[in-house]
Amino acid sequence: MLNFDFYNPTRILFGKGRIADLAKAVPADARVLVLYGGGSIKANGVFDEVMSGLAGRTVKEFSGIEPNPSYETLMQAVELVRRENLDFLLAVGGGSVIDGTKFVAAAAHFEGDPWEILEKRGRNITQALPFGTVLTLPATGSEMNNGSVVTRKSLQAKIPFSSNLVFPKFSILDPAKTYTLPLRQVGNGVVDAYAHVMEQYLTYPVNSPVQDRFAEGLLLTLIEEGPKVLANPDDYDTRANIMWCATLALNGLIGAGVPQDWATHMVGHELTALYGLDHAQTLAIVLPSMLSVRKEGKRAKLLQYAARVWNLTDGSEDQRIDEAIRKTRDFFEQMGVKTRLTDYKLGTQNIDAILKHLESHRMVTLGEQRDVTLDVSRKVLEMSI
Amino acid sequence: MLNFDFYNPTRILFGKGRIADLAKAVPADARVLVLYGGGSIKANGVFDEVMSGLAGRTVKEFSGIEPNPSYETLMQAVELVRRENLDFLLAVGGGSVIDGTKFVAAAAHFEGDPWEILEKRGRNITQALPFGTVLTLPATGSEMNNGSVVTRKSLQAKIPFSSNLVFPKFSILDPAKTYTLPLRQVGNGVVDAYAHVMEQYLTYPVNSPVQDRFAEGLLLTLIEEGPKVLANPDDYDTRANIMWCATLALNGLIGAGVPQDWATHMVGHELTALYGLDHAQTLAIVLPSMLSVRKEGKRAKLLQYAARVWNLTDGSEDQRIDEAIRKTRDFFEQMGVKTRLTDYKLGTQNIDAILKHLESHRMVTLGEQRDVTLDVSRKVLEMSI
Repeated sequence: MLNFDFYNPTRILFGKGRIADLAKAVPADARVLVLYGGGSIKANGVFDEVMSGLAGRTVKEFSGIEPNPSYETLMQAVELVRRENLDFLLAVGGGSVIDGTKFVAAAAHFEGDPWEILEKRGRNITQALPFGTVLTLPATGSEMNNGSVVTRKSLQAKIPFSSNLVFPKFSILDPAKTYTLPLRQVGNGVVDAYAHVMEQYLTYPVNSPVQDRFAEGLLLTLIEEGPKVLANPDDYDTRANIMWCATLALNGLIGAGVPQDWATHMVGHELTALYGLDHAQTLAIVLPSMLSVRKEGKRAKLLQYAARVWNLTDGSEDQRIDEAIRKTRDFFEQMGVKTRLTDYKLGTQNIDAILKHLESHRMVTLGEQRDVTLDVSRKVLEMSI
Repeated sequence: MLNFDFYNPTRILFGKGRIADLAKAVPADARVLVLYGGGSIKANGVFDEVMSGLAGRTVKEFSGIEPNPSYETLMQAVELVRRENLDFLLAVGGGSVIDGTKFVAAAAHFEGDPWEILEKRGRNITQALPFGTVLTLPATGSEMNNGSVVTRKSLQAKIPFSSNLVFPKFSILDPAKTYTLPLRQVGNGVVDAYAHVMEQYLTYPVNSPVQDRFAEGLLLTLIEEGPKVLANPDDYDTRANIMWCATLALNGLIGAGVPQDWATHMVGHELTALYGLDHAQTLAIVLPSMLSVRKEGKRAKLLQYAARVWNLTDGSEDQRIDEAIRKTRDFFEQMGVKTRLTDYKLGTQNIDAILKHLESHRMVTLGEQRDVTLDVSRKVLEMSI
């Protein structure tokens, strides 16, 4: 096992009816900004429950945080916080709204140009407004971690930052509030969580049986529960299990003490920044090819993955590995997320542009062994056509 | 899945050489009390490393915290804290030292008689001194939770209390510092962690596949790594895996959203309070019988445990369950912890006294279904002879 630090102070309030707990979780004298995306929370009743929970407090709203939240949009929220002297933020939505709220929290009283927060990847954050979240879309894990990704449209760049100052104070996870999600978002969420686990699990062995088994437990559960949620969208337990999987997939626990990859995410970010694909779509495209191209470096873990997650123990090593990767791809497709560049009208003609963006973002030695050069990324993209 | 809250703000600093991180983790102007048990930390170098990490700070010592830390001893530490105006505590040791330090932290500036903290089970704690831990004995999980058990010798009572104010600020877990532990303590630690998992796992199904798989992952790892540590006490990875298992066994995670039992612990506490048995010894005695006596209420989970942890899938349900319980008992014995009352020179003649103590502590409806009456506890004890 590798040395590690683990720290995660976010309070999770999980279950039916928990939005009412806002009344206790948000300070009674708070001046609150509620941030959200489109209007779905107004259609499905979440917004009303939130307002009821915040009763008695000064509450302002900021809507329109888009998928892959943009610096340009978020700076409008920062202005609102400053103008109205608000002191508590509440993100109501999925990973994009929460990521965006983290940026607003850090930028509100940042001394200097808030753009520097992204340039320095968050290392220069010295304070942030406190904030909570009401999660409506299980996927990114942002509700229980200290990371965020913000897009600067003008630069076609998705830029991650992190700071222990942007852990949510609390996150409310009510699985019943996810019944009305479009199935595309449900499938995306399952694929996103699955890919998060794989980035932390599918590397090389360091004798970490607990981390491995926790990761495998999440993968097995997503494989079991994912198809169930498509078949029975209103089943509470299925929703609950997927929601808790997605949170645990990226709250720091399964990655503590083990190598981590993240090359799939870095290549995927460029696909979103350049062509506007959903985050999960990019992962579904890149991950299977990434595993195939890097089969040698990941051989031991791929065999473990094949055996323990897909129950593949017969045949040659290469047969088992290839079959496990094929099953991974099939699972993503089963969740409604296409896994080929051509499914999104992209192909060979786009690869140079993607690589150029990777290079300009200094993503030239990715992966747990820092051996994913631009040549390797090219092979991955070529295999993803 | 049941509704749940999860909150755990303790920072974990895990790995080789981490005691040096005390220099960053403890405030530079802190007036520190270092609390420990016997002299082992002076013999194995841990004490010197701790003092080196605390260099530049005012540091006082309090030694002699015994296994099953007593109110009587701890109140002496409280007096020292008050007299010397100390403002930061550092527990260096195992669960007893850490549990004791939690009490000292809460009692130091408690308004009223600190005994009331135990009488109210911690609900009346409104502030506590900040403290960290350097863990030298993986077992209880106290290094990453908000619970503590204190013994009042004069009453022959072990009393638990908890409060979110007594989470350690940080805990340093260096597996290399456990090489010199006596094997009895190593075996006790593995059994203790195993029993913690079982109290949260072996109840009845609530459709919580992630929690189940995490619990099973811990059990499987303890079963694999336990015998290895007895055979190769100086193997770093084995020590590391056991240490991380023990922490995760009782940090709130695997118990979130599922029913919990704890009847074995409650009966075990009386055995320690009355006869001075090691905590893990009492669990090894009580747990197998507890599972046998309550086979009907726990049938579904016992079958899952038999299949997934012990790979028992042939034979009748009862055969599989009985075999799983037998293997559990054998594992405890393999770890050097005897599992029969008679191994400790106790027997039928002691059962009435144990039941009387349970009754006096209002432990008359224990377990996840509150159906472990004194009659059930009697059967468990009779089967434990």
